[in-house]
Amino acid sequence: MASVDVPVALLGYGTVGSAVNRLLTESAADIERATGHRLRVVKALVREPRKERDYPPEGGVLTDDFRAILDDPSIAVVAEVMGGLDPAGDYVLELLRRGRHVVTANKQLVARRGAELFAAASAAGVQLRFEASVCAAIPVIKVLREALVVTNVHRVLGIVNGTTNFVLTEMEAGKTYEDALGEAQERGFAEADPTDDVSGADAAAKMAILATVAFNSRVDLDDVDYSGITRIDPLDVAAARELDMVIRLVGTARLVEDGFDVRVSPALVDRQHPLAKVDGAFNAVMLQGDAIREITLEGPGAGGIETASAVVADITSILGTMGTGFLQNDAAWRQLPKLPAGDSRSPFYFRLSVEDRHGTLARVADALAEREISISRLVQHPNGTGAALHVVTHEARAGALEDALAALGELPEVHARSQPLPVVSERGVTELGWA
Amino acid sequence: MASVDVPVALLGYGTVGSAVNRLLTESAADIERATGHRLRVVKALVREPRKERDYPPEGGVLTDDFRAILDDPSIAVVAEVMGGLDPAGDYVLELLRRGRHVVTANKQLVARRGAELFAAASAAGVQLRFEASVCAAIPVIKVLREALVVTNVHRVLGIVNGTTNFVLTEMEAGKTYEDALGEAQERGFAEADPTDDVSGADAAAKMAILATVAFNSRVDLDDVDYSGITRIDPLDVAAARELDMVIRLVGTARLVEDGFDVRVSPALVDRQHPLAKVDGAFNAVMLQGDAIREITLEGPGAGGIETASAVVADITSILGTMGTGFLQNDAAWRQLPKLPAGDSRSPFYFRLSVEDRHGTLARVADALAEREISISRLVQHPNGTGAALHVVTHEARAGALEDALAALGELPEVHARSQPLPVVSERGVTELGWA
Repeated sequence: MASVDVPVALLGYGTVGSAVNRLLTESAADIERATGHRLRVVKALVREPRKERDYPPEGGVLTDDFRAILDDPSIAVVAEVMGGLDPAGDYVLELLRRGRHVVTANKQLVARRGAELFAAASAAGVQLRFEASVCAAIPVIKVLREALVVTNVHRVLGIVNGTTNFVLTEMEAGKTYEDALGEAQERGFAEADPTDDVSGADAAAKMAILATVAFNSRVDLDDVDYSGITRIDPLDVAAARELDMVIRLVGTARLVEDGFDVRVSPALVDRQHPLAKVDGAFNAVMLQGDAIREITLEGPGAGGIETASAVVADITSILGTMGTGFLQNDAAWRQLPKLPAGDSRSPFYFRLSVEDRHGTLARVADALAEREISISRLVQHPNGTGAALHVVTHEARAGALEDALAALGELPEVHARSQPLPVVSERGVTELGWA
Repeated sequence: MASVDVPVALLGYGTVGSAVNRLLTESAADIERATGHRLRVVKALVREPRKERDYPPEGGVLTDDFRAILDDPSIAVVAEVMGGLDPAGDYVLELLRRGRHVVTANKQLVARRGAELFAAASAAGVQLRFEASVCAAIPVIKVLREALVVTNVHRVLGIVNGTTNFVLTEMEAGKTYEDALGEAQERGFAEADPTDDVSGADAAAKMAILATVAFNSRVDLDDVDYSGITRIDPLDVAAARELDMVIRLVGTARLVEDGFDVRVSPALVDRQHPLAKVDGAFNAVMLQGDAIREITLEGPGAGGIETASAVVADITSILGTMGTGFLQNDAAWRQLPKLPAGDSRSPFYFRLSVEDRHGTLARVADALAEREISISRLVQHPNGTGAALHVVTHEARAGALEDALAALGELPEVHARSQPLPVVSERGVTELGWA
């Protein structure tokens, strides 16, 4: 089959954009062998075409005029690697409407404007691919959409934010939250403003995208309940160690009878569980489905060249499937409701500071039993004037646990209680819920 | 885009074949949404069409006449799920020559007749896909060929045989080899004749396929040096435990300057290494490349429905890429030589039974140092009349280690020596070699 020349345009030419150009240039022969197409970056949209850059493109490629890309009919594929919602969102929408295939690395864009963008792609008969928007080079979107087409994936569990995973790993080794975050910033694992990472917002956007693709139902960022790691203190870390667990920021998406349940929160993870073993800034995603039981993908979840590698993979996949109708549909073809937060189910951990006198434990156990919450593990310690109770429950409704904790707070014997954290333990039967 | 009817034929209708029919039937709507094609099994080749079967196909589908499939021009895609080399190999070859896309789950066929089959596919402009031939539902072939096109994967490390992984896990828990194998057979993880698994031959065929795809150079089964787990004894298991390691059957493929080095052998794996944590009958494959650092895929490496899921994924991927020229080439477009076995490099473990007297250790250290082998860890124990020496080396040439062990065998102070085993420890810098 004779090779075809394919002019490609980039929106943005920063770390990721220049790496995409480098990969396309250096791997041109590999790509031609795999796809029968020769790829070449012909235009790249930037704010200042005259600025000096690493790996500068050929003369005439850089432009500050979006129209030069939109109005060039020879450009079939455009990669959006500029980030941000505005103007990236409108640019992508216009390109799709004009029949251009688009690849994006922009998770906020996919999580917030996905519905509109996929509808436009579908109407124009082109593809919108977004592998790089979730966990960089880990090919989880491709695996979900192309390898697990018939497996009914009903649960996704992931460590999808490297910054928080690094910080929590360092806290485990004895560092304070502040010191661990400082170290992450020094080593380039965290931004100067780490709010998006430590608040859980970044992980929530990724889980929204993963859930949408896995369950074929639109899950917006607003449908994801999330909390971050800023309130995790050394007491939590110590309690986890005592229970032979570690604290990780875990994203979970479940397909349940009445809808979907997608959330991100710190969780206690059993040390034997694969998610407890994800190193530093690495990411891991576990997919559970009918025909596959459980498939886990692990790798670097960020980085310029890693992200660029995913962008290039998407471009080559488009070339391989152009004109066949493959994946031109919106992945979300059905509408499922969000499960009410109180109906989310999980085993939970919490601790109480109680008076050390007879009858206290019975009253605690009663408050739980009345709400059909049973105890899986209990550790009691002397604690200054009283005792500390560490409680791990069997799977329970989040709403019932909330009620129980409120009732426990009313007991005169209970002086203080921690926030509850979901627990991830056994594989295949793990459940993670509200926190 | 209007849907297209696609008649599919199966060669074989056993556990995998009937599961493929079931998945295609039950997931017809999912497949149509993803690909725009409606799939239907119209013919299935079996020896006895009249035998009673689980999930029987519609009347008239079963046939014992291969010509009924070969000569039916409406059939565009055929899945080979009958196994064995003969007649499966000739059937696949004829189908490819007649312009049929073929999907196969047959690792022996791909590892032994790959060159011929891919040449035929390429000449006819059709695809031969083989995801199910390696690690069942784990989509490692798709990831290598479609997601990591531009990443120059230079090392593949894997636990690719569930039977031996289960047996070794049980031996770690105290079982003898025979008891562990019996348990594996009882639980359906091992065949009545387990030779292919325990000899390492099954893992070797999978590593040959993975190396071919990763390095784009034909690696035949004969190019893989392999040894199995039959000679692993409780002393090895105890020694591993003492070094905080476990014994696993590890496949490794390396792209080196002068060629490729692909081998399968028992290895000592550091307990902190991800491969040490692969449970029972699960498989895991680690891919190391320039742009991705390291991506690991883990999941069930066997099973009827898992294998069928991979077959169906391959069929849908063909539909998605038909006519674009994508992946019609042979993955192996270059010819690299096999590295001579002696040039393979790895850290190694071995143990010696020595006389407990002064000067012995110095002589052992000398024999190693003369061959530029340095010691990373050493543990000495009293051992009846003498001492046992456990030695872990830094990375060394396998040939040099062989020489050193031969020389040590000549020393009067050395009464016995074990076979050397490669060691897998740090990530990213791990090296596994000859044993």
